Amino acid sequence: MNKTRLEAFSDGVLAIIITIMVLEIKIPHGSDWAELKPVIPTFLSYLLSFVYIAIYWGNHHHMLHSLKSVSSGIIWANMNLLFWLSLTPFSTGWMGENNFAPNTMLLYGMLLLANGVSFIILQKAIEKHAQDIEALKTAFVNMNKKGLISTIGYACAIPLAYVSPIISGALFIAMAIIWLIPDKNIEIALTEKPE
Amino acid sequence: MNKTRLEAFSDGVLAIIITIMVLEIKIPHGSDWAELKPVIPTFLSYLLSFVYIAIYWGNHHHMLHSLKSVSSGIIWANMNLLFWLSLTPFSTGWMGENNFAPNTMLLYGMLLLANGVSFIILQKAIEKHAQDIEALKTAFVNMNKKGLISTIGYACAIPLAYVSPIISGALFIAMAIIWLIPDKNIEIALTEKPE
Amino acid sequence: MNKTRLEAFSDGVLAIIITIMVLEIKIPHGSDWAELKPVIPTFLSYLLSFVYIAIYWGNHHHMLHSLKSVSSGIIWANMNLLFWLSLTPFSTGWMGENNFAPNTMLLYGMLLLANGVSFIILQKAIEKHAQDIEALKTAFVNMNKKGLISTIGYACAIPLAYVSPIISGALFIAMAIIWLIPDKNIEIALTEKPE
Amino acid sequence: MNKTRLEAFSDGVLAIIITIMVLEIKIPHGSDWAELKPVIPTFLSYLLSFVYIAIYWGNHHHMLHSLKSVSSGIIWANMNLLFWLSLTPFSTGWMGENNFAPNTMLLYGMLLLANGVSFIILQKAIEKHAQDIEALKTAFVNMNKKGLISTIGYACAIPLAYVSPIISGALFIAMAIIWLIPDKNIEIALTEKPE
Repeated sequence: MNKTRLEAFSDGVLAIIITIMVLEIKIPHGSDWAELKPVIPTFLSYLLSFVYIAIYWGNHHHMLHSLKSVSSGIIWANMNLLFWLSLTPFSTGWMGENNFAPNTMLLYGMLLLANGVSFIILQKAIEKHAQDIEALKTAFVNMNKKGLISTIGYACAIPLAYVSPIISGALFIAMAIIWLIPDKNIEIALTEKPE
Repeated sequence: MNKTRLEAFSDGVLAIIITIMVLEIKIPHGSDWAELKPVIPTFLSYLLSFVYIAIYWGNHHHMLHSLKSVSSGIIWANMNLLFWLSLTPFSTGWMGENNFAPNTMLLYGMLLLANGVSFIILQKAIEKHAQDIEALKTAFVNMNKKGLISTIGYACAIPLAYVSPIISGALFIAMAIIWLIPDKNIEIALTEKPE
Repeated sequence: MNKTRLEAFSDGVLAIIITIMVLEIKIPHGSDWAELKPVIPTFLSYLLSFVYIAIYWGNHHHMLHSLKSVSSGIIWANMNLLFWLSLTPFSTGWMGENNFAPNTMLLYGMLLLANGVSFIILQKAIEKHAQDIEALKTAFVNMNKKGLISTIGYACAIPLAYVSPIISGALFIAMAIIWLIPDKNIEIALTEKPE
Repeated sequence: MNKTRLEAFSDGVLAIIITIMVLEIKIPHGSDWAELKPVIPTFLSYLLSFVYIAIYWGNHHHMLHSLKSVSSGIIWANMNLLFWLSLTPFSTGWMGENNFAPNTMLLYGMLLLANGVSFIILQKAIEKHAQDIEALKTAFVNMNKKGLISTIGYACAIPLAYVSPIISGALFIAMAIIWLIPDKNIEIALTEKPE
């Protein structure tokens, strides 16, 4: 099986997830600036989730780039990841509409954790299937490190939502920033073996 | 006619179907956990339909992979399949919103049956058009078996919804599991003739 | 400029148009069969529009297949077509929700006419740009014939909506059937010069 | 990293943005022509935004066409652009639903400005990364000129919304027309070096 359609389907799903979230930002009926005020938390939660989905798209891109073909295991690990990611608009909307209430932050943290674990499962499926295991290991070394740190970060953010939603929110943002730092190992590994 | 755009269009439609279903999970207005309770049946129906659409995507991928070109017959058999699949969000939402009431289970079963029959029609159109009929037959032997079993399964689930929605639901899940079991014949057939 | 991204973008827009129309079929709140009754006209209007969008996708596919590159004129003629096609969910929904009332049929007929004229404009832009004018003319001969007939058909259906919506509806269906009849000229033209 | 998936993902997001905006044109419940009257401003705002997104798609297409590979910087500059563009349906809807009230025009102008600046940032990221800097500079010379003019245009339209929404609207339309004028420099640059 080749990977073109898996990439195309995943790109389609991720593009739709990232875009339909904006439908949760309900258009206010009046034109006063005050009408936009309740929109602010929804907007902020949209911004956070947009960044997360963009990170997942980037990592997904990286990870499948090094592959030549896909197995059934990879297809289903990918579907599992897309399933959890597809719940992002719901959890984002719940958090935004309730002004980052503790319960909604906790659910969002659980979803981030589920996304993170699903990504690690996909990574393992790819490692198991990959032909060029050494090059892949070099490429994955930073992703593994970040994966571990962010899993711990999400796991901490979940109970901390009851202590203070601000701490959880700060952790969500911090984990996103960790992923945004460019991954030199992957770029080096990819540059060394040009397509 | 080449198959690239047929695959791209089908991937687009399937990606949208699988993702807009999540819009049916209405965001509760309060932030209490109790507010999430009515969401549970919608979530479960979403999960079931997600798995079904994912299975159709996988089988669609398999089936078109072995093709080199497409005929008008294949294009319209494919459009017919996409039409019935596109009704999945409606039927899923009706089932979830009404807590798996018998009528909604019956309609869902009828839709699964329509999807299954449409898939068989597409398969026949492909068999008729295919150049390499022998390799295709080997690849399709398990798909035919599963197609027959699941068609019978859906047909039984329809009247059984009035006996007990639980039986119908169990049949829906069982038929999905049958399709999830990896299809060795196709993988062997594809591996033997690498691209 | 190459045509790959134009095809990809058009496929994306057409896939979304064809799929979001299903969101107009509002999910009834109760689970009685009677609840589905008001859904029937929406469903029928969806079916009609699904077939029309599918026809446009097929013709679009045909027309761009014979091209090697695209000009600015083609890009904007294509955008114009996509704009009118994107209004289909609105017009379809209005027609379905108002049980095929004359005004809604008239607007739908006007939209079909706008779509048809936009398609002819795109065809002219392609003819103007095309390198292999003879082969293209052979391929387009039936499309021109059908284009003329259906333009007349839509134009007649518009005022006839006030005489009887049934006549207009019959014309909409008849024009769709005309397009569904396989276009031998194109298939012959394409087969003669394999890619 | 190759650019195929970046193009595919961007095309997906742009196709969805351009199409979901039509969902903001709420279907009226009655079938009288008078029912369509409140739809007119929403329709006009949709038309304007459709043209803008189409222009961005065209320019995006042009700009990435000249690239051979993409860097992390380009990926994130592109994500930033897609983020601001994804807010278009919200701002369009607010403007349309409030009949082009000054505040809504001001916000729309700010969004156009944010889109324009994001596009310039992406352009800079591409220039920084590009291998063939001379050819690119020739291709970008008109885009730079238009970018500058339209940035000034949007910046003027923002405060002028309080003087008269009509002036702002005229500026929005004028800036769109500037972008619609074919970009000879790019076409020449591309034609001179065929793929």
